Amino acid sequence: MKLWEKKNTKTDAQIEKFTVGNDFLVDLNMVEFDCIASSAHAKMLEKNGIFSRSENKKIQKELLEIRKLAQNGKFRIKTEEEDCHTAIENHLTKKLGKTGKKIHTYRSRNDQVMTAMRLYSKHEISKVEQETGKLISALERFAEKNKKVKMPGYTHMQKAMPSSVPLWANAFADSLKDDLLFLKSVKKLTDQNPLGSAAGYGLPHSIDRKITTKLLGFKKVQKNPLYCANSRGKFESMIMSALMQLMLDLNKMSSDILLFSTKEFGFFDLPDEFCSGSSLMPQKRNPDAVEIIRAKSHSVKSRLFEIISIISSLPSGYNRDFQLSKEPFICAIQSTKDCLQIMTRVISNLEVNSENCKKAMIPELFAAQKVLEKTQNGKPFREAYREIADEMQGA
Amino acid sequence: MKLWEKKNTKTDAQIEKFTVGNDFLVDLNMVEFDCIASSAHAKMLEKNGIFSRSENKKIQKELLEIRKLAQNGKFRIKTEEEDCHTAIENHLTKKLGKTGKKIHTYRSRNDQVMTAMRLYSKHEISKVEQETGKLISALERFAEKNKKVKMPGYTHMQKAMPSSVPLWANAFADSLKDDLLFLKSVKKLTDQNPLGSAAGYGLPHSIDRKITTKLLGFKKVQKNPLYCANSRGKFESMIMSALMQLMLDLNKMSSDILLFSTKEFGFFDLPDEFCSGSSLMPQKRNPDAVEIIRAKSHSVKSRLFEIISIISSLPSGYNRDFQLSKEPFICAIQSTKDCLQIMTRVISNLEVNSENCKKAMIPELFAAQKVLEKTQNGKPFREAYREIADEMQGA
Amino acid sequence: MKLWEKKNTKTDAQIEKFTVGNDFLVDLNMVEFDCIASSAHAKMLEKNGIFSRSENKKIQKELLEIRKLAQNGKFRIKTEEEDCHTAIENHLTKKLGKTGKKIHTYRSRNDQVMTAMRLYSKHEISKVEQETGKLISALERFAEKNKKVKMPGYTHMQKAMPSSVPLWANAFADSLKDDLLFLKSVKKLTDQNPLGSAAGYGLPHSIDRKITTKLLGFKKVQKNPLYCANSRGKFESMIMSALMQLMLDLNKMSSDILLFSTKEFGFFDLPDEFCSGSSLMPQKRNPDAVEIIRAKSHSVKSRLFEIISIISSLPSGYNRDFQLSKEPFICAIQSTKDCLQIMTRVISNLEVNSENCKKAMIPELFAAQKVLEKTQNGKPFREAYREIADEMQGA
Amino acid sequence: MKLWEKKNTKTDAQIEKFTVGNDFLVDLNMVEFDCIASSAHAKMLEKNGIFSRSENKKIQKELLEIRKLAQNGKFRIKTEEEDCHTAIENHLTKKLGKTGKKIHTYRSRNDQVMTAMRLYSKHEISKVEQETGKLISALERFAEKNKKVKMPGYTHMQKAMPSSVPLWANAFADSLKDDLLFLKSVKKLTDQNPLGSAAGYGLPHSIDRKITTKLLGFKKVQKNPLYCANSRGKFESMIMSALMQLMLDLNKMSSDILLFSTKEFGFFDLPDEFCSGSSLMPQKRNPDAVEIIRAKSHSVKSRLFEIISIISSLPSGYNRDFQLSKEPFICAIQSTKDCLQIMTRVISNLEVNSENCKKAMIPELFAAQKVLEKTQNGKPFREAYREIADEMQGA
Repeated sequence: MKLWEKKNTKTDAQIEKFTVGNDFLVDLNMVEFDCIASSAHAKMLEKNGIFSRSENKKIQKELLEIRKLAQNGKFRIKTEEEDCHTAIENHLTKKLGKTGKKIHTYRSRNDQVMTAMRLYSKHEISKVEQETGKLISALERFAEKNKKVKMPGYTHMQKAMPSSVPLWANAFADSLKDDLLFLKSVKKLTDQNPLGSAAGYGLPHSIDRKITTKLLGFKKVQKNPLYCANSRGKFESMIMSALMQLMLDLNKMSSDILLFSTKEFGFFDLPDEFCSGSSLMPQKRNPDAVEIIRAKSHSVKSRLFEIISIISSLPSGYNRDFQLSKEPFICAIQSTKDCLQIMTRVISNLEVNSENCKKAMIPELFAAQKVLEKTQNGKPFREAYREIADEMQGA
Repeated sequence: MKLWEKKNTKTDAQIEKFTVGNDFLVDLNMVEFDCIASSAHAKMLEKNGIFSRSENKKIQKELLEIRKLAQNGKFRIKTEEEDCHTAIENHLTKKLGKTGKKIHTYRSRNDQVMTAMRLYSKHEISKVEQETGKLISALERFAEKNKKVKMPGYTHMQKAMPSSVPLWANAFADSLKDDLLFLKSVKKLTDQNPLGSAAGYGLPHSIDRKITTKLLGFKKVQKNPLYCANSRGKFESMIMSALMQLMLDLNKMSSDILLFSTKEFGFFDLPDEFCSGSSLMPQKRNPDAVEIIRAKSHSVKSRLFEIISIISSLPSGYNRDFQLSKEPFICAIQSTKDCLQIMTRVISNLEVNSENCKKAMIPELFAAQKVLEKTQNGKPFREAYREIADEMQGA
Repeated sequence: MKLWEKKNTKTDAQIEKFTVGNDFLVDLNMVEFDCIASSAHAKMLEKNGIFSRSENKKIQKELLEIRKLAQNGKFRIKTEEEDCHTAIENHLTKKLGKTGKKIHTYRSRNDQVMTAMRLYSKHEISKVEQETGKLISALERFAEKNKKVKMPGYTHMQKAMPSSVPLWANAFADSLKDDLLFLKSVKKLTDQNPLGSAAGYGLPHSIDRKITTKLLGFKKVQKNPLYCANSRGKFESMIMSALMQLMLDLNKMSSDILLFSTKEFGFFDLPDEFCSGSSLMPQKRNPDAVEIIRAKSHSVKSRLFEIISIISSLPSGYNRDFQLSKEPFICAIQSTKDCLQIMTRVISNLEVNSENCKKAMIPELFAAQKVLEKTQNGKPFREAYREIADEMQGA
Repeated sequence: MKLWEKKNTKTDAQIEKFTVGNDFLVDLNMVEFDCIASSAHAKMLEKNGIFSRSENKKIQKELLEIRKLAQNGKFRIKTEEEDCHTAIENHLTKKLGKTGKKIHTYRSRNDQVMTAMRLYSKHEISKVEQETGKLISALERFAEKNKKVKMPGYTHMQKAMPSSVPLWANAFADSLKDDLLFLKSVKKLTDQNPLGSAAGYGLPHSIDRKITTKLLGFKKVQKNPLYCANSRGKFESMIMSALMQLMLDLNKMSSDILLFSTKEFGFFDLPDEFCSGSSLMPQKRNPDAVEIIRAKSHSVKSRLFEIISIISSLPSGYNRDFQLSKEPFICAIQSTKDCLQIMTRVISNLEVNSENCKKAMIPELFAAQKVLEKTQNGKPFREAYREIADEMQGA
């Protein structure tokens, strides 16, 4: 039974299947968080006299039960239930009768979905932060392990100036640290409680929204109910902007590793168990995982672009289009988490061929150094530059 | 067992899980088409003396068997098999021993994947063409049914000049007809056989690629093997450009229907069974399906953008990144097909409120007509325009 | 004076500046094409009795005059005139008085802009086709010149199988030929005359639209006037889809050239006059032009997505948003043309280091060949594969 | 003369024109900021003994001179100079001879460009913050002015619940306030001094980078020189993510205003001087400026994706592709600033038709209220919901 089902409700099966889409699957990620939110909502309802103490107790117990079912993969969402929110209310009503039918008082599916989404999002961002921390540590260990290895620095993919393996690794560690700060500020910014905004226009009766805010650990109430509705997708896109930065770093790291692991460069080497082979060519050892990380950054970028496009050019208030922001958001988070994990393992196992690095340190890399040495005795830089240039062309 | 597995193959479970991703599920769409392609390949191998007649017969029989299993949802791909291509070779080897081990002669997974993908793509484009045809018919019927209903024409969302329901519907029918031509030209352009290009660098032994080309119904051999490899993703993006055009039309159609179905405009009306309700507001009848079509056009756009981004800035030849082009392509095709179907049903059931349309035909819509009437007697257009403008401001 | 200016027209200077944007500059590209379209429109007006023969003659003469001014960079568009269309009508009225004021009879700026745009677009596509043809020739000459040079073929950026310089070059020639077919089909599809569709809702008086269609060389009348309006941006996006394919090829060509021109690969060499230096490092020779081509493909991609996004989620009929589709379209065309020209010069001057290519042909490249040789005597492919794999691991 | 020009420098004119592109124009935005950065750099050089006190004084004077020329539009960049950085060094050398030739000691164009870019960016972000502040004030004044006007709240573009003009306006004010916080955190994060990182691999001599950091007002030194190089484009994309959020708000605000200003809705009215007319239809008053704001958000989005795409899949260190990140960044900032300004004027002049708003407050809007009233006496919400639903269907 759908939440909005009425006496004469007609539904067209094909339309229903189309509008529900993958939600009945995607929403399995949300059951836990909707239960947490519903639990806080029920406590507020008790304070407002909608639930008696014993009714609330039963609700709390049953919500815990649903969480357990979900954790064991035993909570199912039927297509005709549309989403986890309906499935949960149906479950409560089936188990608790009239008590279950009271749970939706003072809320709409709009604020309910957003609340679960934000709890999910806070939970997942913490995991992304942890994984980023691990990657930073791996890079720092890698830098330390290879602290004496010089290698050429490139611009325009051509040898430029002397560099080193720790310089390379720490450049990414620093970049990831900034990404963490970015992510943190975005997490803080979106840490607002939409519960109580109902359908985006508030409620005729005033409820104390601070209760659920405190219970759910949100930093603040997101007061204006229309702003709540309008921030659907917007907040997701903010968070994805931060994920995008992480993925940009992973993409560049991948590009470097793939280039430096060619036989022609030969600076890095991936261990066998990180490589795949070819169905036709028995000699092949291919760095598939790193290539996939490179590619996944484009997927996350596209998912960000998708969400921004979906929420654009729409009038205020909830529009069903928003529903399609859920899957890209979840995918982007999962991809980022996966890629961080894999990259941590790659960096932890990456071998540096110091012999090849050494060989690559050709004299041309020191041309700028020679120029600067000449400037120490008062020779203008540009003149010194042209003298060295002439010398090298003469050679 | 993986195709490239060797005596001392080491694989890291986490890396494997990451690189395989959803392929073991996504590839269920491909089993049928890989079997068709493998069947043609086996026939070619018989002509080349790799298979004896009886070996080929067994292979053909077993491939048919796999197709049947797949059609009944009984063909499984194990994660450690990576994809359908491995699963199929493993199945053949398990059933036919040495004969199965011969099937991969003269091919690589690269050309094998591309061949299956192109067969899938041709098959699905035909379905998209059919669905588009149905929508065109529905629009023409809708135009015919409401052929006498005038309605205002808008520019800048403001009333501009007299229009009509059939003008509106036929504008989309014409647009979709052009999209069909676009799709047709793209289908023809990509109707090239990559089988025999192996890993993108051809084969040391010459094989007659016309055999499989004819058997598989491709328009031509895609000769240069490196072009075959480089067209991975590229051909998909061409096709998706054409799908994008269909989705742009559906997006505009949706935008119109949603606007014209507001109470304020009131020109169109969606039947109850196409509408959903609200969990909080009992009066609501929401046009969810149409909103989702509007949103899905942004998903298809993003998927196109994803594929183009994934294949960009990569050197020639196969790179594992290409693997990530599969899912967006399949999603874009399925979404387009779904949206065409649903829109056909929407248009077939859309009701026109001719009373409201009539009421909306206010005199201002005829201002340009008045100007043009004045020009019939030699008055310069711009003067007539300003006279009418003055009259209307005076009013 | 604006075309829509009336007795009491009030305009806010800042708003005007904002809405006009760069149009007064961008439109300088359009003057020529608007004059051609206006010339055909005037001839039609003579047939319809709006212009006398002598009036039309004067108009024709003056339009030629404007084209001459424009060709010499002497035709100016004032900001308050908004665009070239207003500037041209103003010019005609200033010179010819009442006759000039008649030119806008039976048309709107909407169909006028689209007509000029399509003429521009047909003109520019022809140039793109020519430039593509030149690049194909350059690649074929390059292939011929280096026809005997073998080089390694790569997959996953790792050595895979033997390839050759002509195989590499011809892969791109073939790809570009397909792009030309794609472009041709898109050119044909968009070769429709929108003139006479007025503001998207036709005209109260019937005019013979075949007259201007024939005079302007369009393949057909775009009949439904609302489809005309709705195809604004849509047709541009179709054309840009084809440009995108060209840019994808140039991007891959660039990626290859940049990789193969590193000292580490050393297969290709760009002549000095195609390279830039560094402000700090005197030894540097950087392949800037090729890097910029690689980057420009992302710009064209973004411009395509800009147009698609701008025209999405809008109701039927002209919306001012369409105005912003002009600049991305023009930029994408110019970028593509420029990049094709530069790449033609790069390929024509690219030197192959055959010595390095030869050195790179290591035995591992022939592993698949060894496997296939074993299969000639009946050994199953997969067994032969594993034998060679074991041999190589043993070595 | 180019900075890297040597005795036998050969340059191909067409290649030069292509690689320089619009930089000689775009860079006019940068002259001021490069002079400020060069001034700090010169002071550091004096401390390091490269400049004598009197040399530095001359440099400081001349840099001020250049800034004055630039402010008066009299500083020119020749195409063959490539960019403002070369033009400035050339100017100094022309005026000061050997002293000018010393200015580039200890820096590369890479860190020089980035430093100027960051100063520009900080300067412009402050302006964006100011404009956002003005828009917030305008919205709050608008809310205050119309504080008593109720209007319907919409979901799915259908009437949902009672709303009000202040609720609508304040939803945007709140959203913009969050955007400001987002922008602020991004400004802080990118407030790092890259000067001294040279070509991305530091310098053979150690210089005290804190000197220029303090002089230029940066929050910190961006230590790792390779991270400096790698943050090109990355930092721009972070900032543009924040601009994107502003544009999303403006896009939604525009969508609402355009919908609410249709005759059919009739809630809002734009004053005449904010509207344009039609060349054909004398009655038209079109809200062009608001439509252009809606469209510009798609341009900013595309520019963000352009930059992200350009910097993706590239190896570490400077690549010339980065050059193409300059124009999209400048365009995005300018567009956002313009749109904020125009929207402030729109909101400040927007008229509310309170009569129409009142008429639109139909009883259906209060259905949820009726349901909630029933729940006050213990009736379960879902039962109350279905009772009211039945009542309304019965009616």
